[in-house]
Order: sequence, then structure tokens, then C-alpha cells
Amino acid sequence: MTTQDIVDAVVRALTVEVEASGRHVHLTREAVEQLFGPGHRLTPTKELSQPGQYACAERVDVVGPKGTLKNVAVLGPERKECQVEVPRAGAVALGLRPPVRQSGDLRESCPVKLQVGERVLELDRGVIVAQRHVHMTPQDAQRFGVADGETVGLRCLSERPAILLDTVVRVSENFATYVHLDYDEANACGWKKGDRARLV
Amino acid sequence: MTTQDIVDAVVRALTVEVEASGRHVHLTREAVEQLFGPGHRLTPTKELSQPGQYACAERVDVVGPKGTLKNVAVLGPERKECQVEVPRAGAVALGLRPPVRQSGDLRESCPVKLQVGERVLELDRGVIVAQRHVHMTPQDAQRFGVADGETVGLRCLSERPAILLDTVVRVSENFATYVHLDYDEANACGWKKGDRARLV
Repeated sequence: MTTQDIVDAVVRALTVEVEASGRHVHLTREAVEQLFGPGHRLTPTKELSQPGQYACAERVDVVGPKGTLKNVAVLGPERKECQVEVPRAGAVALGLRPPVRQSGDLRESCPVKLQVGERVLELDRGVIVAQRHVHMTPQDAQRFGVADGETVGLRCLSERPAILLDTVVRVSENFATYVHLDYDEANACGWKKGDRARLV
Repeated sequence: MTTQDIVDAVVRALTVEVEASGRHVHLTREAVEQLFGPGHRLTPTKELSQPGQYACAERVDVVGPKGTLKNVAVLGPERKECQVEVPRAGAVALGLRPPVRQSGDLRESCPVKLQVGERVLELDRGVIVAQRHVHMTPQDAQRFGVADGETVGLRCLSERPAILLDTVVRVSENFATYVHLDYDEANACGWKKGDRARLV
């Protein structure tokens, strides 16, 4: 083991890898059938960093009052309620002003239409801008000295350095330790794949 | 004068208003004539916050290797070299990876095509992502204790609070005191018109 290997291992231990989430939708069982046909099952194509989560072959158009985002990724598995996550730039293109929310918290989220060919599904609510967050295993949370639900600052070690405050820590045995930003945030930080952040 | 008036005045004295700059182009005299016809003069439609700078009635399409940004704003007055400023999200849509640069610094900036109807202008270079910056009068620079060319942190007092590091201070008698972010940065901070920032 070289000195550089040791330095790299220490840096990894003191920082968390940052991932950027593109716009995507989560669907219920009923929504999958309404949009893709009776009995249809989502087709996993790629595992995501969080265990059990995956990208699907299916795509949907998200239709807002002012514009449409075409071919938006569907993430599995199915959920109890449909949810559409867009960065603010995407929300502006749709003509919506969704609230910044943690995944699963759809209070005051915006109504929107999902479309696949001729099939249309009207959602009463569901569009949010995802609150930036860091997924952590309980072991890593202890190591970093943070608790589930806490907010921390993120010192992004990227081309356009920034400290993103108000980043929610989410801790679960089912998680892998990664920071999730949307593309507005990732671009603002000059993020590239593999960049890491310190919790401050 | 009420207590609130005094509080507001103190807050204004300790903070700087943040503006978000949309994608835009600066053109040379020659480029104006090539794109809009011999003898054409830019038509100012709206004064900007920086004295002498204005938005124009003219619009151009910016054509990259992978996509086109249509109807991009032209800002006047004319400059010595053409420059195209896009947020990273816009650069991705064009299929370009421009460097983050201060306005006027076009080292390693990307080539691109400008188009107005049938008229086309090929630029050898010119596309940048604008480095975040704060324009200041010499009086305000002295008051905040900063100097031209220095970089500071910006504590954005907005919906998604962040500290944007590496923000360049630019001081001139010809400036008005404003922070300029691009829309990736403004969106990442949850910026809305009128929001302010502290220098840290």
C-alpha cells in the first residue's frame, strides 16, 4: 500500500460521494397499468446506488400547464403514491412552482399529467423539487456524528465550490451512503461524477 | 421612521441584492451586421442594473453540436469580441462543455454558431459558463472590506440556503452593487427576485 493509497482511503472515510439525480417519476401499481396497460410490470434496466432501487425501461411524458418534459425516467419499485421529481429549471419549463420537499412528502405538491402515447393519467398532486439529502447507513451516521432527520451543511469538493446548507440526513439500514443533489444544485457546484463532499 | 424601516435599512447595508442572469450573448459591431444586416443597430428595450448595459429587441439562435437554444437574448452595448453565456444546463443542451470564466476571459471557451433566420455566424470561440461575481462600487467595496479581484463566499438568504464560495469581487466606478448568479446557481439556492446575500 502506497502513501497515496492511504491518503485516498482517509479522504474516502472523511467525505461522501455526491450523485446528481435527473428528473424522474415514481409510479403506483395502478399508474403503471393505466399508462402501460393492464398487467404491465416495470422493466428494471439499471440498479441505482440505493439498494433495491432501479431505473426502468419505461418512460413517460410529464405534461404541465406551460410545457412538456418528454421521456422522463421511471424509477422502481412501485410506490404507494405517484411522485414526480424535477429540478426548478424543469418545473419552470412545465409552468409549475412546486415546493421543495423530501421524497414521500407531497404536501402542497403540484398536480400534473403523465402521458404515454394515447394513455393519460391526471395526478391531483405529486410534483416536487427534491430537498437535497444524504443517505447514510447507521454505521456511517455514527462515524460522521449525525442523526436521521438532522440537517447539515455540505462542502462540495467540486469545480465551483459551495457549501449547501439545509441538507437532510436520512439514516437507514436499507441505504448506501451517498449525497443526492438535483441538477440545478450539481451544476451550480460544477459537479462531475465521482466528486465528493464533506459534512460541515 | 419605524423600527422596521431602520431594521430594513441595516439589512440592506449589510447585504447585497442577488440577480440571476439568463443565457445571453454579447455581439461585436461586425456580428450585429452579419446577423441583422448591413448598418443594423441594436435596439435597446430595457436597462439592466449595471449602468450603460441593456437588453435588446434582437434575439439569436445559438446552435451547438447537439442542440439549439432558440431566441437567446442579446445584451448591449456592442463589445470587442462575441461572447455567449449559458448555465451548465444550457451548455449540456448545446452539447458543449465550456469553462467557467469571468466575462471577457474567453481562454478555452467553446466555438458555436449564431443564427438569425438564414444568416449564420460561426464563432471560433466565445461560449462560457459565467463565474459568479459581485459588482461593487468603490464605496461599497470599502464598506464591505473587499478589493477588486478578490474572491468571497456568498451566504444566499434564500429558500434553499447555501454559501457559494469562490465568488469574484469586481469593483468599478461604473458598476452598481449587485451579485450575479446564473440560473443553475439561482435555482440551487431557491432564489427569487429581491433576495439578498451576505459576504462571508
